[in-house]
Amino acid sequence: MFVDNTAYRTIWPSECSRYVNIIDQTCLPFSFNIARLDTLEKVIHAIHHMQVRGAPLIGATAAYGIAIAMLDNQTDAHLTSAAAQLIKARPTAVNLAWAVQRIQAVLQNTGQAERVDVAWQTANAIAEEDVQQNQQIGQHGFALIQQQQKETVHILTHCNAGWLATVDFGTALSPIYVAHNAGLNIHVWVDETRPRNQGASLTAWELGQHGVPHTVISDNTGGHLMQQGQVDMVIVGADRVTANGDVCNKIGTYLKALAAFDNQVPFYAAVPSPTIDHRLQDGRAITIEERHADEVAYIQGLDSAGDLQTVRVMPTASQAANPAFDVTPARLVTGIITEKGVFAPDALPKGSR
Amino acid sequence: MFVDNTAYRTIWPSECSRYVNIIDQTCLPFSFNIARLDTLEKVIHAIHHMQVRGAPLIGATAAYGIAIAMLDNQTDAHLTSAAAQLIKARPTAVNLAWAVQRIQAVLQNTGQAERVDVAWQTANAIAEEDVQQNQQIGQHGFALIQQQQKETVHILTHCNAGWLATVDFGTALSPIYVAHNAGLNIHVWVDETRPRNQGASLTAWELGQHGVPHTVISDNTGGHLMQQGQVDMVIVGADRVTANGDVCNKIGTYLKALAAFDNQVPFYAAVPSPTIDHRLQDGRAITIEERHADEVAYIQGLDSAGDLQTVRVMPTASQAANPAFDVTPARLVTGIITEKGVFAPDALPKGSR
Repeated sequence: MFVDNTAYRTIWPSECSRYVNIIDQTCLPFSFNIARLDTLEKVIHAIHHMQVRGAPLIGATAAYGIAIAMLDNQTDAHLTSAAAQLIKARPTAVNLAWAVQRIQAVLQNTGQAERVDVAWQTANAIAEEDVQQNQQIGQHGFALIQQQQKETVHILTHCNAGWLATVDFGTALSPIYVAHNAGLNIHVWVDETRPRNQGASLTAWELGQHGVPHTVISDNTGGHLMQQGQVDMVIVGADRVTANGDVCNKIGTYLKALAAFDNQVPFYAAVPSPTIDHRLQDGRAITIEERHADEVAYIQGLDSAGDLQTVRVMPTASQAANPAFDVTPARLVTGIITEKGVFAPDALPKGSR
Repeated sequence: MFVDNTAYRTIWPSECSRYVNIIDQTCLPFSFNIARLDTLEKVIHAIHHMQVRGAPLIGATAAYGIAIAMLDNQTDAHLTSAAAQLIKARPTAVNLAWAVQRIQAVLQNTGQAERVDVAWQTANAIAEEDVQQNQQIGQHGFALIQQQQKETVHILTHCNAGWLATVDFGTALSPIYVAHNAGLNIHVWVDETRPRNQGASLTAWELGQHGVPHTVISDNTGGHLMQQGQVDMVIVGADRVTANGDVCNKIGTYLKALAAFDNQVPFYAAVPSPTIDHRLQDGRAITIEERHADEVAYIQGLDSAGDLQTVRVMPTASQAANPAFDVTPARLVTGIITEKGVFAPDALPKGSR
């Protein structure tokens, strides 16, 4: 998608296949920085510290992490070790383990001499598949937006499941971009998404760059807007969807789904089908990542001099807790938008695993 | 209640009855400042800019505002004008209009020569009644906490309905202080309560000063904690309760009530009975205050040098919306805790108006 009228992806390999470039998302929305990842350690750091984030992008980045790890050492032992380290970098996102295990399986069936080339080809293929899946998600979700038949369709989203969360186009925001590009009047309510503020910092930024009308709201506001009839549909992404249709996504998603259900507002999760994990019967089987309390205690923003500052927003003597995800029960979900079409949560397609 | 082991109220008159002192709550939790209000304009400013906030405290402050206005000019015209200006300072809080109209009615039946003395007496009486009501709310709510019969009772609260929101003791937090003082193990989940962060800045601070164990969480987190069985009850305050039991409180309360209902967690609003407005049939009749978008776009905190900084947390090109309250339907409310006892939302006591 476009940044200052230049087309970017969130991650792209160097022409020499020796490293990858990423948009460092910890600097957005105030500063647009490209970072070079040329060691396994830098890839793990980028995933763990959320320079890259969003389940699909984490998966692609981890695949490139394996390719980078192969450059210096093509042994089985190094492959196994690199895979284990990458999977540990973020526990909740299923795409991470899925992408790593996929490239690992390919390389285990490849002679050591060819592993570097095959690793880069496979990582490139994983990234390319993500782009194509997201374009198809956009088309299927667009049909749902068209069905609203409103002069302006007001869509609420939580966190960032836009192109910044993927290699390109996004999941939850892909239908919005398709609809906007097709000339429909779209307005997006953007949950700021504390504690990391990915909505206010990333979703607002990428919608703004693309010219999509949007309004940032505190995470407390969506229920009231739905009561007032100001939300036509909710579209979110997901880090994992279980076999029964439970949706694991950024903390707070469950609260918005409850409000959508209470006000008869359709609630969709948009995901590539590999995010559907048929090995897990329901959301109770998902490990919820507990992140550092400082993410709640501190917030980053631009001061009056235009410098990035981190400020503490609670008493120094108080503790904080920071579970990063929650599970929205399938009973609250209208449909799952995938590259294969839109499915009821109790009739999900068998995935690619 | 105690601040650094010294007993304070949030507002107290000067001995000469010429001005009032307040704790300037915009400086908390990082700086404890006393402000002197000695003109009507300063009182209106303090209410509008939330140096004092919380429905009961706003009411008491406005009553003192009338008393201050009477010092220089005791005419009917000035009384009417002062009352109108005070009521406009915050549109949602019913206590504001109620306190102003009460003191106005008393003064209209008082000769001009006695109006100064009677105004100060009436304002003092309004403040004293608040303290006594809150002590009784604490006793009635304490009985509900005892009924939980848990080794530790985990209570979630939203915004600040503690002693800082009242003249003393608080509404939602009054039962918590009573239980803590009685030796029960209490742990409070404190919603940070964006956009103004009254939970993280005020509730956490006052609980900490009193030694009550507590954990600050983002507003997105309560639903997940309830799903996990980590919340035994929810107690919030309210700016207005309508005749049918709808609860108007800080934006985001509705979302927590939905989650409480979905997880069979009892949900209580604690209010002095004058907050119950029998003139309003249900929550649809309440005007929701839309506050300035900058409250969403900017946040205040302490930088690494220990200085208060205001930082922008969203792109400069993006807009924000900021409705300050929402309405929780009576069907989600377990009970209303008042100084007269605990009532089902469909069996509220007739109030004092």
